[in-house]
Amino acid sequence: MQGKMKAAVLTKPGHIEIQELDIPTPGPDEALVRVRAVGLCGSDVHYYEHGKIGPYVVTKPIILGHEAAGEVVAVGSEVRHLKAGQRVTIEPGVTCGRCEYCKSGRYNLCPDVRFLATPPYDGAFCEYIAIRADFLYPIPDSMSYEKAALIEPLSVGLHAVSRGGLKTGETVVIMGMGPIGMMTLLAAKAAGAGRVIGVDLERFRLERALQMGADGVVNLREEDGMEAILRLTGGRKADLAIETAGNGKAAQASLQAVRRGGRVVLVGLPQEEATPLNIPYIVDNEIDIRGVFRYHNTYPTGVAVMSAENLNLDPIVTDRMTLDETPKAFEKAIKEKHSTLKIVIEP
Amino acid sequence: MQGKMKAAVLTKPGHIEIQELDIPTPGPDEALVRVRAVGLCGSDVHYYEHGKIGPYVVTKPIILGHEAAGEVVAVGSEVRHLKAGQRVTIEPGVTCGRCEYCKSGRYNLCPDVRFLATPPYDGAFCEYIAIRADFLYPIPDSMSYEKAALIEPLSVGLHAVSRGGLKTGETVVIMGMGPIGMMTLLAAKAAGAGRVIGVDLERFRLERALQMGADGVVNLREEDGMEAILRLTGGRKADLAIETAGNGKAAQASLQAVRRGGRVVLVGLPQEEATPLNIPYIVDNEIDIRGVFRYHNTYPTGVAVMSAENLNLDPIVTDRMTLDETPKAFEKAIKEKHSTLKIVIEP
Amino acid sequence: MQGKMKAAVLTKPGHIEIQELDIPTPGPDEALVRVRAVGLCGSDVHYYEHGKIGPYVVTKPIILGHEAAGEVVAVGSEVRHLKAGQRVTIEPGVTCGRCEYCKSGRYNLCPDVRFLATPPYDGAFCEYIAIRADFLYPIPDSMSYEKAALIEPLSVGLHAVSRGGLKTGETVVIMGMGPIGMMTLLAAKAAGAGRVIGVDLERFRLERALQMGADGVVNLREEDGMEAILRLTGGRKADLAIETAGNGKAAQASLQAVRRGGRVVLVGLPQEEATPLNIPYIVDNEIDIRGVFRYHNTYPTGVAVMSAENLNLDPIVTDRMTLDETPKAFEKAIKEKHSTLKIVIEP
Amino acid sequence: MQGKMKAAVLTKPGHIEIQELDIPTPGPDEALVRVRAVGLCGSDVHYYEHGKIGPYVVTKPIILGHEAAGEVVAVGSEVRHLKAGQRVTIEPGVTCGRCEYCKSGRYNLCPDVRFLATPPYDGAFCEYIAIRADFLYPIPDSMSYEKAALIEPLSVGLHAVSRGGLKTGETVVIMGMGPIGMMTLLAAKAAGAGRVIGVDLERFRLERALQMGADGVVNLREEDGMEAILRLTGGRKADLAIETAGNGKAAQASLQAVRRGGRVVLVGLPQEEATPLNIPYIVDNEIDIRGVFRYHNTYPTGVAVMSAENLNLDPIVTDRMTLDETPKAFEKAIKEKHSTLKIVIEP
Repeated sequence: MQGKMKAAVLTKPGHIEIQELDIPTPGPDEALVRVRAVGLCGSDVHYYEHGKIGPYVVTKPIILGHEAAGEVVAVGSEVRHLKAGQRVTIEPGVTCGRCEYCKSGRYNLCPDVRFLATPPYDGAFCEYIAIRADFLYPIPDSMSYEKAALIEPLSVGLHAVSRGGLKTGETVVIMGMGPIGMMTLLAAKAAGAGRVIGVDLERFRLERALQMGADGVVNLREEDGMEAILRLTGGRKADLAIETAGNGKAAQASLQAVRRGGRVVLVGLPQEEATPLNIPYIVDNEIDIRGVFRYHNTYPTGVAVMSAENLNLDPIVTDRMTLDETPKAFEKAIKEKHSTLKIVIEP
Repeated sequence: MQGKMKAAVLTKPGHIEIQELDIPTPGPDEALVRVRAVGLCGSDVHYYEHGKIGPYVVTKPIILGHEAAGEVVAVGSEVRHLKAGQRVTIEPGVTCGRCEYCKSGRYNLCPDVRFLATPPYDGAFCEYIAIRADFLYPIPDSMSYEKAALIEPLSVGLHAVSRGGLKTGETVVIMGMGPIGMMTLLAAKAAGAGRVIGVDLERFRLERALQMGADGVVNLREEDGMEAILRLTGGRKADLAIETAGNGKAAQASLQAVRRGGRVVLVGLPQEEATPLNIPYIVDNEIDIRGVFRYHNTYPTGVAVMSAENLNLDPIVTDRMTLDETPKAFEKAIKEKHSTLKIVIEP
Repeated sequence: MQGKMKAAVLTKPGHIEIQELDIPTPGPDEALVRVRAVGLCGSDVHYYEHGKIGPYVVTKPIILGHEAAGEVVAVGSEVRHLKAGQRVTIEPGVTCGRCEYCKSGRYNLCPDVRFLATPPYDGAFCEYIAIRADFLYPIPDSMSYEKAALIEPLSVGLHAVSRGGLKTGETVVIMGMGPIGMMTLLAAKAAGAGRVIGVDLERFRLERALQMGADGVVNLREEDGMEAILRLTGGRKADLAIETAGNGKAAQASLQAVRRGGRVVLVGLPQEEATPLNIPYIVDNEIDIRGVFRYHNTYPTGVAVMSAENLNLDPIVTDRMTLDETPKAFEKAIKEKHSTLKIVIEP
Repeated sequence: MQGKMKAAVLTKPGHIEIQELDIPTPGPDEALVRVRAVGLCGSDVHYYEHGKIGPYVVTKPIILGHEAAGEVVAVGSEVRHLKAGQRVTIEPGVTCGRCEYCKSGRYNLCPDVRFLATPPYDGAFCEYIAIRADFLYPIPDSMSYEKAALIEPLSVGLHAVSRGGLKTGETVVIMGMGPIGMMTLLAAKAAGAGRVIGVDLERFRLERALQMGADGVVNLREEDGMEAILRLTGGRKADLAIETAGNGKAAQASLQAVRRGGRVVLVGLPQEEATPLNIPYIVDNEIDIRGVFRYHNTYPTGVAVMSAENLNLDPIVTDRMTLDETPKAFEKAIKEKHSTLKIVIEP
């Protein structure tokens, strides 16, 4: 398929242009997807503002966006399990399939991954993308493209819950109720959590958490976090705490929030390299701390979870915009943090 | 069995007296054991010097010593699996068997454990102790009481290696080659480690580590630890690091010593409550950090490991003394750190 | 508490008498419970009809019933976590807490377990029972005694699902939709199963399974089981099959019902000792087969699952009767299999 | 590299010819390996005798042999981690890297695997093969090509032991002490087994098992297997049994050979499709049965295990022959079963 498409291109930090680019040509093992929904992620905003995340630096114009779903419009010659017309969700990290990490099932640690919207690879704020077909997953007719796109952040939550070893009926505390915290809440509920307690500083987010099924919330502006967790767990503390806020103090509080033998999963990236943690406490209580980097093998699960009949994402998706409005979406994400959770672009 | 026995009693910090006390009477589910070998542990020395460890305070005279083995001389009325004359090793923590931790197999976290030589419970630097019979494990005739006693510190190593999820052939770094580090080395080798690298500041300890089978050692006084680990692992780093030194810097170095997706086990207790750890690194590399508190279900394994035909503990057991020499043993442990590893008392 | 109570006593096979017996006196670590609800289990019916199950033989009058809940009316001198007036569910197997199985967390394999209504131990079809307090679990005020009693069969389902290693979103086939199959359905849903497919010969049971949330059902009287499972799973088969029917053919079918690398859990006891199984198929497909005997560590989870707000057990509990009607209940369970699922006695 | 090479070609069942064929040309992601050692496997013999194994049918001339090691002589344009001159062992199953099994780490279940010497793919009884470079693993200079080749059957043992969940110090029974049984013995020892007991009908094999480190052996021609296992385990039975004989009766005996809660791993393929197994026994004792098909992620471990200083494979490698002697090797494997274990061809 030849022709031109619209794309939102970050030409320099703080500046996104809607450009007309060539529609990409899929390779023999790729498919061409007409993008229908793309979520705006915190990492997109970070590249927009700062032009880099850690070692990943934007050195030339880039298309951002990696939470995407759409419709297959063409497939390469070797692709057998997909055909034009199929509705799919896109797993955005294309891995090598050959390194020790890929072969052992932890392909999120593949050193050669090509991840959408991570320099130098372009992302999905555009009309068409070509991507290896084995990273496309068909979705049911009943699932909206918006939900299909948000299987990406849900995957982070699913992987966090999986790494946390959640058992049916356990109590989970989630630190930070931004979009990743919300998706972790969904994932924990889907995985059989008995009680999920959300912790944040923003009343707006905690209200949305309750709408999404949180069994309790703690507003750190209004009460002491530790006291609240003890109260909400009958003095027992949680079995599992998941830190999604990217905040050192929240990581410290996560250790205190779990019972003896409990687990703490770290998802968020604090600004600081060094966070003081209490090793004698970790040792005496046999706490486990487990880092989470993206996810692996979550998409089939994500499709199942997003297919739940009564699932309503309206409390999370605060804004829906067109591709032309992408620059506005980034500005809103930065300036209206107190009322914005997830913005979805519909190209 | 009635009568008197000798015991080494800590009457106040820094002062141990050899006293004559009543031989204890075993309860119906207990056995009376004639103690034949007791190892001197760092925690014994800590009580001797400071009169307390964290929340555990010595408030009245106490018998120290919890690494013990001996001969059963009498059993209570309900005891069926043991009889007088049997040679046994002693697991020193008697747990309740009824709490959620006991019932789920992690009985080391039992809040009601009664642990030998942890106030207010007496230990084994004496001629006889009575203890619940299900914490006594028969040993083969070919095993010395010394080896049987040292199944206790070996258990810490076995539990550390088990918590570390060691797989056959993996590379392990052990930080700190004191007695617990040495036992962790034994445990790692027994569990199928491919290469074990010992790290310490003392040449004496590293030489002993090599004698015990370490595949490589790093003397931090002589070379950069990280460079040495990279060199010894062909640039790959270790799969698992186990911190036994109780040192915050060693804990930090443990994180750096493992490959992406690696595991760090924390056994040692640093003096400080707060150790700065690099959370972005933990997250990006999906590192696991796992605390270890004592051990559970290790004694049958420990008996198997200590039964190995060619096992020679001479590099670890630097001193063997009588019960009367117990005060001298404590002083030696404190003053001659550079030439002392494990001291065993033979009452 | 002294006095007399009513009890339904099996005096000989096929004959239950309502007798007046002494109320039992709780030991120091026991509690006395006023029984409020007891489920009638297939094993009770088997003892009633045949006087034995395998090696367990009824040799003197016995009170049956082991799915029970009630109100604490007195506690022994050592009991701290319970007091009179508390509503509790009863875990019916009192284990030793000291053997290798108890210590490693698999206490269901304890060789010294005393299990309610398993000869020579009496059960709960009576007004009061005394039982070790650590096997009593408080329930919320909002939970009915009936639900609390049925945490026992739910525990079998929870353990089966746990042994099956169910991951969020997976597809489960349950062979046999009797009470244990139904409880396994509840457990699988609670644990995050994506799709649960129930298989049985009885239309009545399959209708009830759909009412309890099954995503699909297969009536082996009306269609080929394998074809139906392929159809309901889009050709992929299930990830996990759980055999609860106690039928060799169902066990064989379970192997065929799972995908490569899938798991089969065996809960039901076929009459025959020998069932022909296809070992080349098991090997080629790396199937796991896992036996399930009762359960362990399930009650806290069971309380959480039974606390779910919208849970309605009416499709499963087909009959509710008084203690005086116990003989009638057994006769109904035997004679009206096509319309009876779970009968609950309310003493 | 162009030119001709010698190859042992199975032209029809029972007939192997030494032919001159073109040296294969490696693709961009492949390496060309000068084969130095190839083990003769039971599956090779089966193809030789019967022309098929299950669904895999030899329909045109084929080169057999899949246990191979050699020297890299050329690499394709994309290969970075290898270069000419390197000594390597060859993992013979080239997987797709893209299916759900590959992505989840169980790539041995990949439906699109191309496995050496499995029709229609040629094997390694020849001078050169070309194979995807990520399935080649460098070996130490000190390791013989023979040992490197036998990492393939060792991998079956390593995977069997891993699937069996062997814990340090446990007791393992291995049914069948042919080459796979021997390699499973090596793997179990390397993984920390406390005691390994070998069972067979042939005195020759059991003697070799003892030479390879078995702690006990049972000759079923001379004593009752169950009695012997009870005697050798002090009445406790094994924790894990691994069936490598491909015999239904041995599979049945494996169930009886393990303690309550024990595991049985099935590696061998019985001739019969149906083997009567005792389901009530599996259920009552919570036995696990786990099929094993080839292996995954074992080669780095295998290199580590084969690197052990004192490892001597002479008791296993009964014959070493040249490529020209390949026809003779097959005949010997068939006709001299009582004195032949592993034959290695050195092209």
